[in-house]
Order: sequence, then C-alpha cells, then structure tokens
Amino acid sequence: MSAHFRKLALIGIGLIGSSIALAARRQGLVDVIAIATRRQETLDEARDLKLGDIYTLDAAEAVRGADLVILCAPVGAYDALARIIGPVLEPGAIISDVGSVKEHVVKVVAPHLPKTVYFIPGHPIAGTEHSGPSAGFAELFAGRWCVLTPGADVPADKTEKLAAFWRAMGSKVESMDAAHHDMVLAITSHIPHLVAYNIVGTVADLETATQSEVIKFSASGFRDFTRIAASDPVMWRDVFLTNRDAVLEMLGRFLEDLSVLQRAVRTGDGASLEAMFTRTRAIRRSIIDAGQETTAPDFGRPHEAPPEPTVTFVREHGGGDDA
Amino acid sequence: MSAHFRKLALIGIGLIGSSIALAARRQGLVDVIAIATRRQETLDEARDLKLGDIYTLDAAEAVRGADLVILCAPVGAYDALARIIGPVLEPGAIISDVGSVKEHVVKVVAPHLPKTVYFIPGHPIAGTEHSGPSAGFAELFAGRWCVLTPGADVPADKTEKLAAFWRAMGSKVESMDAAHHDMVLAITSHIPHLVAYNIVGTVADLETATQSEVIKFSASGFRDFTRIAASDPVMWRDVFLTNRDAVLEMLGRFLEDLSVLQRAVRTGDGASLEAMFTRTRAIRRSIIDAGQETTAPDFGRPHEAPPEPTVTFVREHGGGDDA
Repeated sequence: MSAHFRKLALIGIGLIGSSIALAARRQGLVDVIAIATRRQETLDEARDLKLGDIYTLDAAEAVRGADLVILCAPVGAYDALARIIGPVLEPGAIISDVGSVKEHVVKVVAPHLPKTVYFIPGHPIAGTEHSGPSAGFAELFAGRWCVLTPGADVPADKTEKLAAFWRAMGSKVESMDAAHHDMVLAITSHIPHLVAYNIVGTVADLETATQSEVIKFSASGFRDFTRIAASDPVMWRDVFLTNRDAVLEMLGRFLEDLSVLQRAVRTGDGASLEAMFTRTRAIRRSIIDAGQETTAPDFGRPHEAPPEPTVTFVREHGGGDDA
Repeated sequence: MSAHFRKLALIGIGLIGSSIALAARRQGLVDVIAIATRRQETLDEARDLKLGDIYTLDAAEAVRGADLVILCAPVGAYDALARIIGPVLEPGAIISDVGSVKEHVVKVVAPHLPKTVYFIPGHPIAGTEHSGPSAGFAELFAGRWCVLTPGADVPADKTEKLAAFWRAMGSKVESMDAAHHDMVLAITSHIPHLVAYNIVGTVADLETATQSEVIKFSASGFRDFTRIAASDPVMWRDVFLTNRDAVLEMLGRFLEDLSVLQRAVRTGDGASLEAMFTRTRAIRRSIIDAGQETTAPDFGRPHEAPPEPTVTFVREHGGGDDA
C-alpha cells in the first residue's frame, strides 16, 4: 500500500502539525504541503521554519485539491473548521485529525463532511511539553503508537493507506472504536494531566516563602509533574470539555483508591502501603518491556559532574588558593 | 573548612549509600569506608562493586572509630540501628542520615546517642527510580540540594564540616528546621509519590484487556507516573508512616483543589480549566530557571530515528524488495 499523497493540508501547525510536516517531507510521503493556521504570527513562524509549500490563513484554500487533510488545531476549533472545509473538500480525500479525544471529534466533524470523502479520526500518542511550530521534530512519532478510529462505512484500503502514511513516519498503528480509545486515554493521559495540573496548582497556592523552597527541592518528585502540567492549556481545556464522561468515570476510580491510601496513612497501616507500593512495579516493568520507556535512571536526564577533587588537607594547612 | 574524614561508616548501602561511597572516594574525602548492611547478599554485592574497605553485617563494628557515620537504611530501621551503634560511637563523631523525613528521625535516633557525638540529620534531595548498591553513581548529588537539620545544641562548625563534605560531592547545602523540612517535602515529594502510586494502582485494577492497552499507550502521560511509582516500596512505606501529619495536611489541600477541578470538568467550565492550566506554567519556568530541570523535551528521552525514507511509488510499481 502506498503511503504517498499528492497534497497534504495541515490545519493547525503546533507541535504535532509541524512534526508531521517535517517527517512527511523527510520520508518523501507528499509532494506538496499546505499549512493553514488561525494566527498570522504562527503562519509566519511556520514559513520561517520552511515547514511547507503553501501558507494561508484560509483553511478552505489549504484543503482545495488535497488528497489528505489532517486537522492539527485544538479540538475546540474542529466544529468551525469542519464547516469551513466541508464544502470544498476534494472527492476521494482522506480527512483525519490528531486530537486526544475521538468520540467528540466524530460528533462535531462528521456532520459537515460530504459523503464523497473518507473520515478517519486519528491520535498519535506522542508529544513533549513544548508547543508551537518550532517545537516539532521529524522523530517525534518514531516507535510511538498512532490510533485510528475509522467509522464502519470507511473502506479498509483507505484506513490502510492512512496507516501506511503513519508507519512511514515511524509510528506503530492500531485501529479501535472511538469510545474505547477515549476510555483508555482517560486513564493513561487525561487523569495524569489533571492530577499534575492539580498538584502544581496546590503549590501555587502556598505562601511565597514555602513556594520558593518547593521550587528549590523540586527534584524530589514534584519536578516531573510540572513537566506534564506545562503542556498546552488550550488543548487540555478542550480535552476535559470533550471527554467529560470517561474522565469523570476514571477520576471516580482514582479518588476511591486514593481514599484507601489516605486511610492507610492515617491508621499507620504499613503492610497495606508496602503491598500497594510493590504491585505497581510490575506495571512499570511491562511498560519498559513494551518499548514505551527507557530504563535509564532519572528519565535519562543529564547528570553534571561533581567538582574537581578538592585536596582539602592541603588547603586547610596553608592553601588559601580559592581558584 | 575541611571536608575530610578519617573513617566513614555507611549503615545501609542502597542507591544513596553507594552513591556517597563512590562520590566520597572519587573526591578523596575519606581515608576508609566501612559498609554495614543487614543482608549478606547486599553486602556481597557492595564488595563486588568495590564500594568500600570494610564490609560487615554488624553496624556496631562499622561505626567503631568512625568520625562520620551516615545512616542510609530505610527510616523504619533507624530505631534499632541507633540502639546498636549508640554505645560504641567514637566521641566527637558526626552522626547523620539520608532519610526523607526528619522530625521522626530526631525522635527515634537522638535518645540512643551519647552526649559526646554530634547528631546532624540530613536529606540529599536526589535519587532515581532504581534501588540497591549497583544503582549508585558518583554524580548523583551534583547540582542537587542537601538539607541539614541540626539541633540547636550542635556547634556551627560541626554542621559546616558536614556541609563541606556534601558540597565536595557536588551538592548545594541548606539548613532548616526539621518540621519545616517535613512540610516542604510532603508537597514536593511525598504527595507526588502517593498520587503516582495511586494512579498506577488504579490501572492495576482495570480488566486485563484494557490494562495491556494502557501499557501500550503509556507514553501519553501515565509512563512518567510509573517511574515515580517504581521507587523503593519499603522506603516509601516508611516515609508515609513517619511523616503522617504533614502528608495528611497536604493531601487535604490537594483533594480540595481536585474537587474544584472535578466540578469544572463536570459543569464544562472551560474558562476555569484554562486559567488553572495556564498558571501552572509559571512554576515550571521557575524550576528550570532554578537549575533543577532541563528544558530538553520529553525529559531528554532519546527519540529513535524514523525508518529509512521509503520511495513508495517505486516499490508500488514493481519493487518487491523488502530489504
């Protein structure tokens, strides 16, 4: 199956959109890349980075003649975008997206698309805490999963063509039902982000003196939460607005479990705490075995060298050399 | 102030103990390193790694003649250890530790120490998710904070000598009150770990089919929690048993804030969600500015290269070369 498209239209050019542009170009997957975005400033940035061939503020212009259209804007903008591009889509085109929720996307986009196009929502499970066109890099998808959630009416060869495109960028591809995707992502992604935002928020409410110490001593665990909580606020607002039911369901389970832990702390139930802290190790092991993580300590963060050895007894007895 | 000691006794030789042994040796800070640990297997491992000069299962033997003793065992073992070493400590010796809680340590250790030694509890804010003697490395403390919580009766020059020892291993050193330490660490470290353990536990309770998908798609946020939740279970059990009040206080604040977020999700209050998700960015920025974190995307995890460019139209029309 060819992974090649004549014209790729990227609507939105943040971290994911720009990474697709770079990866698709490097792998020779497209002849022409058209980039549309809402803000002139972002468009100029994309042009400076040479991410595409056509740059426009008009999504309709970008999709004209495109055989692959990928919505890379915040999910909250999809409804309006679908209304704009629907009437001008090329018959036979594949329409996809990269949003973190999928049932909602089907609900707001599908009604505005003509019967002559193939709508295959997608979600590359890849990202960093950085946003904007300059954050993208061609290796972002390598070794990462991309989930496609085609409707029942999409021919298998169309889904396979889009899957080939993602595989050519390094992704592993899996198809599933949109509702199931949303439930799995609620616990793997949305609740972790909600909790990370929440704990950083709790710190933001501490008195200033304590807050500066929190920042100083953040390497003890808190730091990792702040990375997660540094992700794009608008994107995450939209995630929680559009995957509400699955998020509330998983948040309920999380809070139930936390009450059990809270009680174990309060009653000093060491055996329960140790049992709970032990069984979580198996899941970590599975993630490393599944190639989704490295075993490098501390996430592979660089560790600086300690100072040059200090021959302290010499300095003590008559050194005085502070160099 | 000389950072040099004649004989360093390390009681316990896990990640922190072994890192101290390696860093102190490399920096020439000690003449002799004595290592005591509870299990023969761990002691053999330490010997194979050449971490010290004296190896023993008897903590009393290790501390005999030592002018610096550092407890590196789980905090739950401190009471018993203090009773064993107390009677044989060298007059004038500095006794310290590396436990994650400090008020409790003072409570269980101090009563068993003779008046002739200087007890200066310590906490190097550094670590990885790995444990055991083989997990240690000499650079672990470089650029990281070490908190000392000396009692009011400890002469300043003794605290300064221990601080010099830590600085020579690369640490930045700060002294503070034990109770204040425990409150700051509750929010920067203990609550993040509790929450991470909890979310991984919630996943462990999902049905098996969903669980394997959670592992597959863990790069979306969950993965980072599993690293934190892979830390040593016994150490963390002891942290929660011994810093109960500060943990419950901070957990209360965290849960209060989470209720507000939960309500915003339920009612679809996008403005509040976005405001909350935006203000957390400033804290992340402060942590990077404070040198406690790198700006490298995705924690500097290595990103694999995508596959070699596939000239798909050639392969499609007659290639057949799968090489």
